[in-house]
Amino acid sequence: MQDALIALTKYWTDRGAMVVQPVNTEVGAGTLNPATVLRILGPEPWRVAYVEPSVRPDDARYGENPNRLQTHTQFQVILKPDPGNPQELYLGSLEALGVDVAAHDVRFVEDNWASPALGMWGLGWEVWLDGLEITQFTYFQQAGGAPLEPVSVEITYGIERIMMALQGVDHFANIAYAPGISYGEAFGQAEYEMSRFYLDDADVDSQRRLFEEYAAEARRLLDARLPVPAHVHVLKCSHAFNILDSRGAVSTTERAKAFARMRGLAREVAALWAERRTELGHPLGAVEAPAAAAVPTEFAEVSGDNTLLFEIGAEELPPHEVTRTAEAVRRALTQKLAATRLAHGDITTYATPRRVVAIVDSVSDREPDAERTVRGPRESAAFDADGNPTKAAAGFARGQGVDPATLRRVEVDGVNYVGITKTDVGRGAVEVLSGILGEVVSELRSDKNMRWNDPKLSFTRPVRWLLALLGDTPVPVAASSLAAGTVTRVHRTAAQPEVAVASAADYPAFLASHGIVVDQAERRARIIAAARDLAASAGGTVDFDGESALLDEITNLVEEPNALLGSFERRYLDLPAEILTTVMRKHQRYLPVRAASGELLPHFVAVANGSCDHDKVRAGNEAVLRARYEDASFFWRADLETPLEKMKDGIAKLAFEEKLGSVAQRADRIGVVAQELARGVELSEKDTETLSRAAALAKFDLGSQMVIELTSLAGTMAREYARRSGETEAVAQALFDMELPRGGGGAVPSTVPGALLALADRFDLLAGLFAIGAKPTGSSDPFGLRRAAAGVVAILRAHPVLRPITIPAGLAAAADRIRAQGIEVFDAVLADVAEFVVKRYEQHLLDAGNAHDLVAAVLPLAHAPAAADETLTELSARVTDPDFAALAAALQRVRRIVPADTAVSYDPAALVEPAELALHEAFVKARSAGSDLAGFAEAASVLTAPVNTFFDDILVMAEDPAVRAARLGLLASIRDLAAPVLDWQSLTTSLEG
Amino acid sequence: MQDALIALTKYWTDRGAMVVQPVNTEVGAGTLNPATVLRILGPEPWRVAYVEPSVRPDDARYGENPNRLQTHTQFQVILKPDPGNPQELYLGSLEALGVDVAAHDVRFVEDNWASPALGMWGLGWEVWLDGLEITQFTYFQQAGGAPLEPVSVEITYGIERIMMALQGVDHFANIAYAPGISYGEAFGQAEYEMSRFYLDDADVDSQRRLFEEYAAEARRLLDARLPVPAHVHVLKCSHAFNILDSRGAVSTTERAKAFARMRGLAREVAALWAERRTELGHPLGAVEAPAAAAVPTEFAEVSGDNTLLFEIGAEELPPHEVTRTAEAVRRALTQKLAATRLAHGDITTYATPRRVVAIVDSVSDREPDAERTVRGPRESAAFDADGNPTKAAAGFARGQGVDPATLRRVEVDGVNYVGITKTDVGRGAVEVLSGILGEVVSELRSDKNMRWNDPKLSFTRPVRWLLALLGDTPVPVAASSLAAGTVTRVHRTAAQPEVAVASAADYPAFLASHGIVVDQAERRARIIAAARDLAASAGGTVDFDGESALLDEITNLVEEPNALLGSFERRYLDLPAEILTTVMRKHQRYLPVRAASGELLPHFVAVANGSCDHDKVRAGNEAVLRARYEDASFFWRADLETPLEKMKDGIAKLAFEEKLGSVAQRADRIGVVAQELARGVELSEKDTETLSRAAALAKFDLGSQMVIELTSLAGTMAREYARRSGETEAVAQALFDMELPRGGGGAVPSTVPGALLALADRFDLLAGLFAIGAKPTGSSDPFGLRRAAAGVVAILRAHPVLRPITIPAGLAAAADRIRAQGIEVFDAVLADVAEFVVKRYEQHLLDAGNAHDLVAAVLPLAHAPAAADETLTELSARVTDPDFAALAAALQRVRRIVPADTAVSYDPAALVEPAELALHEAFVKARSAGSDLAGFAEAASVLTAPVNTFFDDILVMAEDPAVRAARLGLLASIRDLAAPVLDWQSLTTSLEG
Repeated sequence: MQDALIALTKYWTDRGAMVVQPVNTEVGAGTLNPATVLRILGPEPWRVAYVEPSVRPDDARYGENPNRLQTHTQFQVILKPDPGNPQELYLGSLEALGVDVAAHDVRFVEDNWASPALGMWGLGWEVWLDGLEITQFTYFQQAGGAPLEPVSVEITYGIERIMMALQGVDHFANIAYAPGISYGEAFGQAEYEMSRFYLDDADVDSQRRLFEEYAAEARRLLDARLPVPAHVHVLKCSHAFNILDSRGAVSTTERAKAFARMRGLAREVAALWAERRTELGHPLGAVEAPAAAAVPTEFAEVSGDNTLLFEIGAEELPPHEVTRTAEAVRRALTQKLAATRLAHGDITTYATPRRVVAIVDSVSDREPDAERTVRGPRESAAFDADGNPTKAAAGFARGQGVDPATLRRVEVDGVNYVGITKTDVGRGAVEVLSGILGEVVSELRSDKNMRWNDPKLSFTRPVRWLLALLGDTPVPVAASSLAAGTVTRVHRTAAQPEVAVASAADYPAFLASHGIVVDQAERRARIIAAARDLAASAGGTVDFDGESALLDEITNLVEEPNALLGSFERRYLDLPAEILTTVMRKHQRYLPVRAASGELLPHFVAVANGSCDHDKVRAGNEAVLRARYEDASFFWRADLETPLEKMKDGIAKLAFEEKLGSVAQRADRIGVVAQELARGVELSEKDTETLSRAAALAKFDLGSQMVIELTSLAGTMAREYARRSGETEAVAQALFDMELPRGGGGAVPSTVPGALLALADRFDLLAGLFAIGAKPTGSSDPFGLRRAAAGVVAILRAHPVLRPITIPAGLAAAADRIRAQGIEVFDAVLADVAEFVVKRYEQHLLDAGNAHDLVAAVLPLAHAPAAADETLTELSARVTDPDFAALAAALQRVRRIVPADTAVSYDPAALVEPAELALHEAFVKARSAGSDLAGFAEAASVLTAPVNTFFDDILVMAEDPAVRAARLGLLASIRDLAAPVLDWQSLTTSLEG
Repeated sequence: MQDALIALTKYWTDRGAMVVQPVNTEVGAGTLNPATVLRILGPEPWRVAYVEPSVRPDDARYGENPNRLQTHTQFQVILKPDPGNPQELYLGSLEALGVDVAAHDVRFVEDNWASPALGMWGLGWEVWLDGLEITQFTYFQQAGGAPLEPVSVEITYGIERIMMALQGVDHFANIAYAPGISYGEAFGQAEYEMSRFYLDDADVDSQRRLFEEYAAEARRLLDARLPVPAHVHVLKCSHAFNILDSRGAVSTTERAKAFARMRGLAREVAALWAERRTELGHPLGAVEAPAAAAVPTEFAEVSGDNTLLFEIGAEELPPHEVTRTAEAVRRALTQKLAATRLAHGDITTYATPRRVVAIVDSVSDREPDAERTVRGPRESAAFDADGNPTKAAAGFARGQGVDPATLRRVEVDGVNYVGITKTDVGRGAVEVLSGILGEVVSELRSDKNMRWNDPKLSFTRPVRWLLALLGDTPVPVAASSLAAGTVTRVHRTAAQPEVAVASAADYPAFLASHGIVVDQAERRARIIAAARDLAASAGGTVDFDGESALLDEITNLVEEPNALLGSFERRYLDLPAEILTTVMRKHQRYLPVRAASGELLPHFVAVANGSCDHDKVRAGNEAVLRARYEDASFFWRADLETPLEKMKDGIAKLAFEEKLGSVAQRADRIGVVAQELARGVELSEKDTETLSRAAALAKFDLGSQMVIELTSLAGTMAREYARRSGETEAVAQALFDMELPRGGGGAVPSTVPGALLALADRFDLLAGLFAIGAKPTGSSDPFGLRRAAAGVVAILRAHPVLRPITIPAGLAAAADRIRAQGIEVFDAVLADVAEFVVKRYEQHLLDAGNAHDLVAAVLPLAHAPAAADETLTELSARVTDPDFAALAAALQRVRRIVPADTAVSYDPAALVEPAELALHEAFVKARSAGSDLAGFAEAASVLTAPVNTFFDDILVMAEDPAVRAARLGLLASIRDLAAPVLDWQSLTTSLEG
């Protein structure tokens, strides 16, 4: 292993990096070394490489877990500025480590990084070597709360993992550290003893006092304007905190306070450092951004129709951005071309993680010329009495550069002006495209954008090359520092990674000849075909429908899918299947293989990128999965030995949200609210008991090691652990149910107690976060409130028995518990939340294809979505019934005529005309109608004819006020009788006739 | 610089070292990394190399001092076990760093290392590169208070220093750290800010609390049997202490307590680590010591007389051991040869730092045979009546393996026995020598011995090779693992560093042909000759007499002296000359060059070893001296800006000794004692004032930066700084004087106030350290008490005016002050001290050639050495006077006859005989004689004849008790009259006649 450290050091120093030493106080990551966290600030260049033994007390395992150490070894590289080719440099470093990057499957998989404590974030990847995360690769965007200019590239190698993979050992202790000495021999005792210290023996009171001392000293040093020692003390602070945490001694309040304090100090350190460097005149100088590419001024002429090929080359895009960007580029091109006069055929876009390719068929060689009229003064003011041009006309002509004699009459809206006709000469296709394509690149945006070494561009990942050909004519394109060429990049491991492209013709085939499948659909199909065959070879199948989202992701993680079948030891099948599949999907993007019975088989399909050595890559992936399953087995066993109550106690230490308190507090609120909601509904005695017990255990599994590790297993593990510790199956299921639905369209709770808990969970979440002002904005919804709202709706729709629980009632119950914690929850906020939830419902109904007017009609009922659903169904059936349409029209007519503030009562004695008496009688008959649509429609149908007659015969606005009042009162009563059923006014287009 | 770290890493990993990371908590040296301090314990092998940024808060200088940093970079190597050739490996590493070791002067200069705090010590060297200390090289002998088995070699490179030398820059900030970035650019801001923290801004109260927290945690972790985290906390403790220290916040009491605490913890950590490793079964195995060399059993025969050459090759011996070992080997050889029958001629030994060479002329080819008689039973018991051998005789004969018939008579002390005569056949010379030479090596010892990889040998430094030739015949010698050969080692940088030796003939010339001057006297003479010429070339001279001790040292630091003249900038001559010469002598072993007037010239003579590139070596040495003078200038200027009182305040923080308190406490005691002593002597008013002021300032200069750095300038700097801050010249001189004499034979105080302070200083030292049980033992005298005692004597002898101050009186005054500090000082201890001091005086008198009996005679007066001196002078003059001899004889006769318990008074009326009356009358006359010898001898001469007559005529032991009492009383009175003059009984051989 030491050779690896030496090789990396040499590799990077050969590339101009300086080497520094690890920090001489405990840090959790190389990022915290001042050589990173301070030096990335400000304009000075910096290129550094170093080893950083990184201490994570929480990861202490006495040296027993094969993959976890309280101190692991990071090798850290900072490149400031981004050199433009950091990925290529990185791959070179892997080769220096002896990794045959052509044989292995090396991938850049989206992974963003943020440390709120440091006010830092960045975008980048985790680098996979045959499925094993070996490196964090990040473009730092912000630090100390301020944007970074220039951006730095951080490369953090996880040395133990790399060594375990390269040496093929399955426990860190077995890494050959130096000739004749293993990692375990060198560091095993320290690993054990420091684990003891962090987990069992560190004195908690002492560490609390140390935290205070360090924080206070950091404060003093900031006041003394000494950022370097201040930083050291922030680090010490942080380590003391980590020790307290690993000793299980941090309460939620403490955690929130401690974080706030450290965050404040860290930001001040960063600001002060930047300030001091400015005062010192930036001794290392300032980075200069790459120059802007020359704006094209000369354009080749082409003839005839040609195909346009435009490729935007990028570093690995996040999967969800691949398809999205292809579509965005297609849209942008379509719009921009439409704004020109250039004729063209179909516009197609393709995308892989590294490129977006646009192909426009039959692009005309140039825009046709166009005529354009320019209006001058009124004809009447253009010529004097002698017919000579006036000053106005002469001025206009001069301004247009024409002889006044050429002015002619132009009529606009019946008024005569003078004017001229100009010819806009059509531009050549190359010129037109040059401008458009440049804009397309400059305007690329994603959900979350980043900066790199380019001075102006901003996108989800760095754009590194452009290729533009019209037929076989290069199209010059400039976008900030990038200039388009005729060279594309194929697999980085290809013998010739850059390839010239001669022509736009048949580019997908050209790419295919270099191993790149540019069409997403084709990639997806290939993956399915290959996976099907591989699964079959192991006697199994893959549930492609169930894995659709995963398939989409995999499709966008590779340029050339290369599926392979891996296996794992059968003994892991003893673990709950959800654990196994969760690990496969979420962590590894493997497709699980199942028997016909649906049971898991000990196989998986992994999809590598490009050609590679299948045996090596398979072995690597299998080793990764084994390690992860080993971890999971460890957690599983440990959890099974832990009483549920103890896990539940553990969640008191998990912060949920600063103001809203711990997860335990939230679980308590949920339990109470669920039981309160239950009071309003019919519940069997058994369900009541189940609910009570499940409420007491609510969310206990968040305190299990498994869920701490694999959060998506919350609920799943609750059910498993509850079953295994003797809870009833009903309780276990309720605990499972309370986490449902997990996402849009996901399964909802199957039991009523579970549904009640799930509702209470979501009402608490929504009311709580809206109350503290954390409602979702734009694309930001960190607490998943949209999903929660949709969940409320889904549950209420799925469990009509819960109809008494309206959305406002549920929110009110949740709000009560939150208020009991001393947090203000305004009623207006609750109304907001209710509206927010209803909006989800509305959207869902519309997405399901219901007519807008029908949806609008039932919305007033949406506080009880089950009721609204029923009404909508009924309504949808009736809208084609002419009688119903007539009734609706009559009721709409009534409503239109009655002013909103009309008194609803009336004196029938004041009614005298037959039509009004007939209506009164009909109303009396209809008055007993229920508020459900079916009943109402039947009962109220007696109103239709009398209403119409009434309006035909009677002048509502009689002069006698008593008569008028009675007539209006009658109509208002009819209106109000109909109102609770649905919003009649909304019914429009759907009605028959 | 980073290339150097990489090169060293590669060099050592290529040689099997593993690499570890620096400690992730602040340490003062790489030694404290557990990879050293723990791993050197126990039997397990370990070979490691690492960089250690070493934090010394005390060295913080805001980055302003060119050579001092609060954090400097050590490169640390541990070789366990000693590989047998660590020096050669080390030199190889210098070559790997790009040092041309043949062109430069690389030397191993004695430097031992001890950390009482860690219970650790070792012997070794500082390695010089052209006079610059670049590396510490230590054989660890003990750690945690226990001997180390096996011994580890520690090599600690001071990287910044090496870089400054290699790059030829004069400030660390200018070191090229990495391509395009200097050390200052990389670390300058941190250097400044951490200096601010350590010197100015660290919160003292907080650090005190941290110290307690860490110490308490270390304690708990020891109790939990976790040595690794316990060690980490001892390190944290130590760093907190260092910060407190650099903030000037450690009182003497605190320091003593803190050290005791840290020492205790560190020792427990070491013991616990060793214990745990044993429990773990020593996972890395156990080192095996090299096998013992085969004991020679076959010996070549030689003929005729031959010269024996025996060479013991060692790693660089400390200079004082070079000559000493040559003499010890000569003595051992002489004695051992004398115990054999092997005839031989002269025995000569030579020595250099790397070898001791013994040459024995004319060694006979073999021992002559010798006859030997073995005695059996008495003749009377040997034969029975029939003349047949008895059982006894037969048994004896059988035991001797002879026929009883061969028994013959043997007479011993007049008794007849039977016996046999045996012939001891003489052994061949080679066999004889083989045994002797092996013993010589095995029995080598020095003042301070060490162990290395050899399982049995022990010496001042490792013995690495043996060479033994008798004429041209190899003599097989085995000493533990070493076997003698016929190969010697010449300069390590020679093309052929190992050279075969064919014959013992003319070995010094053989060595000379390889550039080695084996004869110390010749080396010394060469140095003098070369230095004289070089000094003359610069118009100066060297005071060879004055530099005699330095010359001896230089002679023993080189095998081939190679003197060169260096220069320094004239501006440094503005510094006091003592500073300049102290630096030259003590730190650099340079000979100062002076003008005829005695003034320093800006030149020096350095003596390199072996041939080298003079320009390079000169430049290197000049740079080192410049750096040291720059340092000194810095201190000088800083001190001149500091008021004396402030420096004096500073010494309160300097610990003198744990029980005896701070240096300030000691200075206070000295001031009081000096003034108390002054009361008994005649002092002018001016001297009284001077003493009072000097007493108030006593030892203030120990608080100056200069003296903290160059302790031997204590007193010298006091005078300089006192003068420059307006004190009177008398006060300045008194402060200078109080540090005199500095060593045996050194100058004594020239002024009475200075003498009083110097006496008080030494009385305090002696009384204090004896009181706390720290009197010198064997060769250990860490506080220089022998020198102090000699100083007392020298001062009292030089200042007869101080005669009223006897040694006991001075000690009593000092003891009073010490007792006032609450320390018990028993009177018996003071008597011990007085005797200890008198012993120095006695030794001095004897060394000066005075006759033993005369010295013994004046010893009773030695409590006032000046008086004893006078008496001795008088006595020496008088012993040749027959009258005096007669007087002495008479007085001795008196003393012999009078029992010790005789009453001294007598009744003259009881005397009746003429002889006794005559003696009475003579006594009455003599009674007025003073106690000074001259006066007494004159006045008492009247006693001689009457005493003799009295003894002739009178029977002292008269029967009448009254008469007897009177006679005895008379004699006792005479005895007591003479007693105070001198010890008459001691006078023996010196007396005439």
